Amino acid sequence: MTLAESVLKNDRLALARLLTQVENDSAEGRAALVELFPHTGRAHLIGVTGAPGTGKSSLVNQLALHYRRQEDKRVAVVAVDPSSPFTGGAVLGDRVRMRDLAGDPKVFIRSMATRGSLGGLAQATAGMVQVFDAAGFDLILIETVGAGQSEVEIARLAHTTLVVEAPGLGDDIQAIKAGILEIADILVINKADRPGVENTERALKSTLELAHPTQRVFRHHGQYMYATIDAPVDAKLWIPPIQKTISTEGRGIVELAEAIARHGTHLRLSGDWAARERARLEVELEALIQEGLAARFRENIPPQKYQEVIERMVKRDLSPREAAKYLMNGRPA
Amino acid sequence: MTLAESVLKNDRLALARLLTQVENDSAEGRAALVELFPHTGRAHLIGVTGAPGTGKSSLVNQLALHYRRQEDKRVAVVAVDPSSPFTGGAVLGDRVRMRDLAGDPKVFIRSMATRGSLGGLAQATAGMVQVFDAAGFDLILIETVGAGQSEVEIARLAHTTLVVEAPGLGDDIQAIKAGILEIADILVINKADRPGVENTERALKSTLELAHPTQRVFRHHGQYMYATIDAPVDAKLWIPPIQKTISTEGRGIVELAEAIARHGTHLRLSGDWAARERARLEVELEALIQEGLAARFRENIPPQKYQEVIERMVKRDLSPREAAKYLMNGRPA
Repeated sequence: MTLAESVLKNDRLALARLLTQVENDSAEGRAALVELFPHTGRAHLIGVTGAPGTGKSSLVNQLALHYRRQEDKRVAVVAVDPSSPFTGGAVLGDRVRMRDLAGDPKVFIRSMATRGSLGGLAQATAGMVQVFDAAGFDLILIETVGAGQSEVEIARLAHTTLVVEAPGLGDDIQAIKAGILEIADILVINKADRPGVENTERALKSTLELAHPTQRVFRHHGQYMYATIDAPVDAKLWIPPIQKTISTEGRGIVELAEAIARHGTHLRLSGDWAARERARLEVELEALIQEGLAARFRENIPPQKYQEVIERMVKRDLSPREAAKYLMNGRPA
Repeated sequence: MTLAESVLKNDRLALARLLTQVENDSAEGRAALVELFPHTGRAHLIGVTGAPGTGKSSLVNQLALHYRRQEDKRVAVVAVDPSSPFTGGAVLGDRVRMRDLAGDPKVFIRSMATRGSLGGLAQATAGMVQVFDAAGFDLILIETVGAGQSEVEIARLAHTTLVVEAPGLGDDIQAIKAGILEIADILVINKADRPGVENTERALKSTLELAHPTQRVFRHHGQYMYATIDAPVDAKLWIPPIQKTISTEGRGIVELAEAIARHGTHLRLSGDWAARERARLEVELEALIQEGLAARFRENIPPQKYQEVIERMVKRDLSPREAAKYLMNGRPA
């Protein structure tokens, strides 16, 4: 029996092994992803992102608990930490999470400490999400730490993106989030018992008005594009709701889960679920093509020639663009 | 006269035009970079990074003022904002900076509001830095906002990387910076008049001990690698100093500029200056090759075939990896 077959039969150990293979981008992991792909497409993918200090991890924990205890759904969590390419910050996270959810066979939590490029990270996350999807998890929470381009890259994996804020993180932080807000399907103000919650809510509302909730960003051939959703007016209009939570006390979690479910229904009615699926597969295809082309190229260039070109660049004898053309065409541009 | 020739003759208008061409990755911009490349390699590239709220922009402003008024150097600033792929946050930044430095012909400040991918951003920044370098700017300050992988990508452009902290940003933020600290050549505690400065300093010192200051990260074929610097023990040891500043009052700026100069001397004595130059050129070469391969591939695939493959992926009839192989080889894997 292949690893993929064992995963389809709910073998938890096989699942853990396969996730490692996928994270390492091994030949076995790649083959399993091909085998599992026909079984994917059923899970609701939920991205959770926001700046440090907003209590994201605790919120994800509470959401997972809710889905288990109130809805009896199978839940997977993929916690991605693109902020730390060198040191693995994932171990502590796992330990903190274990307490409430340990031992439950319908929960699986996986942290990724990335050591590779951002592209590699997005790709590994996509692979892990596919494994969980094929393995029959109903909800897959994808948590990213930090603020910036990384979130945008990873948010594109999700059907529903939660952007988490907290009161009192300062004006600078509000400013930086303007870009992040535009990817939000649901805004969460966590730590809502803190002073300043009204200000945060007011700031979010005015930023929301600047964003365009009826438009959605896709990436096509490496370019970000805005696409207006083609659907009847009532179905297409999704204004990101603002949900207040106090995750340390479990407050607001039921309402948040309801908002997530409503967004899922909206996506299916508007046709946007399929549009996001398609955009996601297209992005993944392009990443794999890039990787394949680079690998094929490397095989065909003698290391000696590559080194010679670098020497010439260092001497300012050949510009990087000329060097690239030379290596690709066999002659200087 | 070409745009590049005008830039070499200190034509400020030509410089502004060329920077736009390079940012847009136009044919004219590409040709100019090839033309200018032999004139590059003289500037000291200084990366300045750190989380929002640390007062980075004001620090960069003060450093630029110092280099102009105390050292009579030519200074360029490239302010990159990878946190906002959709909304340009760059306009305000420009306005704030203008007051102190406006009208000085030996200063050039350029903000970039990115709309493309992170890879595209790093490439455009590299191009702009080359233009400033060729145009004879002695110091080029590359400022990045946010915290995360973006900073690592862009820090690789610099000879000297400053990581800016500030007291009282919270423990979460300290944790996220563990990865960022490892790229620091100089640590700056800005807003050093705020309460909690001793705690920040203590935290930085203990994190520094965990990091490996005698090792340096390079990226080779898409992988991050650690390389121990090959040089005599005395020359190779650089322990990142911690500099305290209050940028709003201009305090600590002279000492910070001295630390930057010491690091430059260290790089040249240890041979690490050349090693970083080489690593940087290699990364740029690889990005250009990736781009060239992708463009060539797209030219050779009929759009109809591409659409057909996407339809089959959506139907779960073909996995992304099979689809990539099919498009690259003309047959299913």
